[in-house]
Amino acid sequence: MSTNAIAALGLGVVGLGRAFMLTLPSILADKRIRLAGAVDPRVEAREEFASRFSAPAYETLSEMLNNSAVELVYVASPHQLHREHALAALAAGRHVLIEKPVALSLDDSRAIINAADHNNRHVAVGPSHSFDPQIAMALEIIKSGKYGALRMIRANYDTDFMYRPRRAEELTTKTGGGVIFSQAVHHIDIVRLLAGGKTRRVTALTGNWDKARPSEGAYMALLEFENGVTANLTYSGYAHYDGDESAGWMGELGQRKDPSEYGAARRKLRTVKNPEEETALKAMRGFGLGELPRDPDGNEHFGELMLSLDHADIRIGPEKIRIYGDEAVTTLPVEPLAAGRRHVMDAIWQMVRENHLPVQNARWGHATLEVCHAILKSAQGGNWQPLKEQVAVPGYPIENK
Amino acid sequence: MSTNAIAALGLGVVGLGRAFMLTLPSILADKRIRLAGAVDPRVEAREEFASRFSAPAYETLSEMLNNSAVELVYVASPHQLHREHALAALAAGRHVLIEKPVALSLDDSRAIINAADHNNRHVAVGPSHSFDPQIAMALEIIKSGKYGALRMIRANYDTDFMYRPRRAEELTTKTGGGVIFSQAVHHIDIVRLLAGGKTRRVTALTGNWDKARPSEGAYMALLEFENGVTANLTYSGYAHYDGDESAGWMGELGQRKDPSEYGAARRKLRTVKNPEEETALKAMRGFGLGELPRDPDGNEHFGELMLSLDHADIRIGPEKIRIYGDEAVTTLPVEPLAAGRRHVMDAIWQMVRENHLPVQNARWGHATLEVCHAILKSAQGGNWQPLKEQVAVPGYPIENK
Repeated sequence: MSTNAIAALGLGVVGLGRAFMLTLPSILADKRIRLAGAVDPRVEAREEFASRFSAPAYETLSEMLNNSAVELVYVASPHQLHREHALAALAAGRHVLIEKPVALSLDDSRAIINAADHNNRHVAVGPSHSFDPQIAMALEIIKSGKYGALRMIRANYDTDFMYRPRRAEELTTKTGGGVIFSQAVHHIDIVRLLAGGKTRRVTALTGNWDKARPSEGAYMALLEFENGVTANLTYSGYAHYDGDESAGWMGELGQRKDPSEYGAARRKLRTVKNPEEETALKAMRGFGLGELPRDPDGNEHFGELMLSLDHADIRIGPEKIRIYGDEAVTTLPVEPLAAGRRHVMDAIWQMVRENHLPVQNARWGHATLEVCHAILKSAQGGNWQPLKEQVAVPGYPIENK
Repeated sequence: MSTNAIAALGLGVVGLGRAFMLTLPSILADKRIRLAGAVDPRVEAREEFASRFSAPAYETLSEMLNNSAVELVYVASPHQLHREHALAALAAGRHVLIEKPVALSLDDSRAIINAADHNNRHVAVGPSHSFDPQIAMALEIIKSGKYGALRMIRANYDTDFMYRPRRAEELTTKTGGGVIFSQAVHHIDIVRLLAGGKTRRVTALTGNWDKARPSEGAYMALLEFENGVTANLTYSGYAHYDGDESAGWMGELGQRKDPSEYGAARRKLRTVKNPEEETALKAMRGFGLGELPRDPDGNEHFGELMLSLDHADIRIGPEKIRIYGDEAVTTLPVEPLAAGRRHVMDAIWQMVRENHLPVQNARWGHATLEVCHAILKSAQGGNWQPLKEQVAVPGYPIENK
């Protein structure tokens, strides 16, 4: 039976905020997926959703779960609500796509794993930049063995993350604020995917430099994997330098940037007088108030990424992969996806229609979350943290040394 | 009394190898310094030195120390001989310039400190890339306080260090081989200088990936300083990617590179049949056999270097410093030094003639060596290593938080 002959997958979204906004274009571009419902506390978001997509919008998730057209629930609510929303959807027999991080605590992510098992439903965790097409290309190059063993990964990204408009909980670590749960989670997903998935131990230093926005805004982390691969992550969300410059001014979400807009985030934030105004500014970036992101110019990415293998260094960018080999340099173009998050749509389609669980499933997301918590613990306590609940990338070469 | 009225400083060099070759142009370009003697076991090097510089060349250091024209001994011998040569020179009442690392063991560097104190002579440790003019400029910017506190340093460099011709001991860690003693020492000197000097603790992972050249060829290290500054160092000496590309193809020693010479080090090494041939190839890079380095096109450097301060990120290159501030980006040109290692010549002149000890003195070199050993210990044992013999940069802001 061809794909076209199967009915489009009914997706119901919980949370019409910024995360949904960023994924919406990829949903709309994909004929395999249709918006079947939405949940949001904001009436203007519900009205906009209902009128634009001719689909029902609800005030509560339990209402949406009575709608049998919703086959998969996309949990795009604030981090601290992921567990509650995922468990409700799974208990109601739905498959689930959960925004990263899968949850805030490891207890929460374990509960999601158990609920998926118990209800015999699937969970994918995404979007994350581990779905970016250049990462999949790099993984295939590594797995081919053509350049010998992967040895070391260097990843760094400089952004203005801490100066984008935030709700109060996004600036409080215990409610999932700061860059570890929102940004390190991308870095960890990427390097785990490229290194085979099983992190042995991690240590980190975090930076919490701005008393007005008191959560982790920067980190430097070393990871060692069970197969001996090592990785070094550096991230500043306080940055003035824009890490997208090194990606040819391609923005994280695939829109080409105008360098003349230097310092825009800090300038805009200075117009805000109090936390209420900032929360309102953040809401303006959500569905029903903010403008949809403009069409991407290319692939998404998460900053600089360099792999060291025995017989090549590989620099991974959103537009090209440069392979510096023993003899020569080869450049592989990375074809831009028509819809930036097409690979996430592929994953949920295959999960629901073909019973194929993606690499980035609940156990994967739990393992990535374990690394996030280990980073925080290491930065507080000063020691390397062993990891115990890591999962492997299927088909990854077992012996890498 | 003006500088010109004081007699030129008589410099006697021990070891006419690669290190001397690289410093020689800066010695010759400096009217304040004159070559007063040399020591080397190779007769062809001695003959070349004597005929070219009209100065005596000796088979042993004790002979040269009978020459009263030698006021300062430049210890440019292999690492494992630094202690013996420095102690002999100090005992004979000479000031000393020692190539980095100051010595191999901390016992050795302590012995050098004690001998300098006992004989009331001065020791400088260099050249190292902490003498590069852009580093001095960056330190002045930090000390000015104009951009708030320094928070984080990211430094990385990719080179073909492990595939340059080597003597056997340069590929054996216990005799000072590998990248920790030869290359990390630059990184550590640079970040210690910029961060105030007093490292609190360090952890690292090292890579030893090529069984044919069995020493550390790569490292990733996290450093935390007593004032809270953090630093992240990444280095691969196995690299295929040339880190000088990010410096506008300016080489480490200030000569502009031709990108078409890609892979030259590995190609040349493949022509070598055995360790004896490799040792001979290495000797060809020393004085009397190899060609002098061509005149520099600009300043030396040691790879990518990014500083994060409260109110700016600062990217430091050999030709320009880019300051990404709160409002705008400022570019400061770094004037090329006529002689690449002029600042080292300044340091020894001031040390001998003006009794002014440079920052990079024996205690400084000892503290940097302490970090080198802590990196090796951490990489073997897996823990963070506390540091106990660190020294501060004079005049550095005491409170940085």
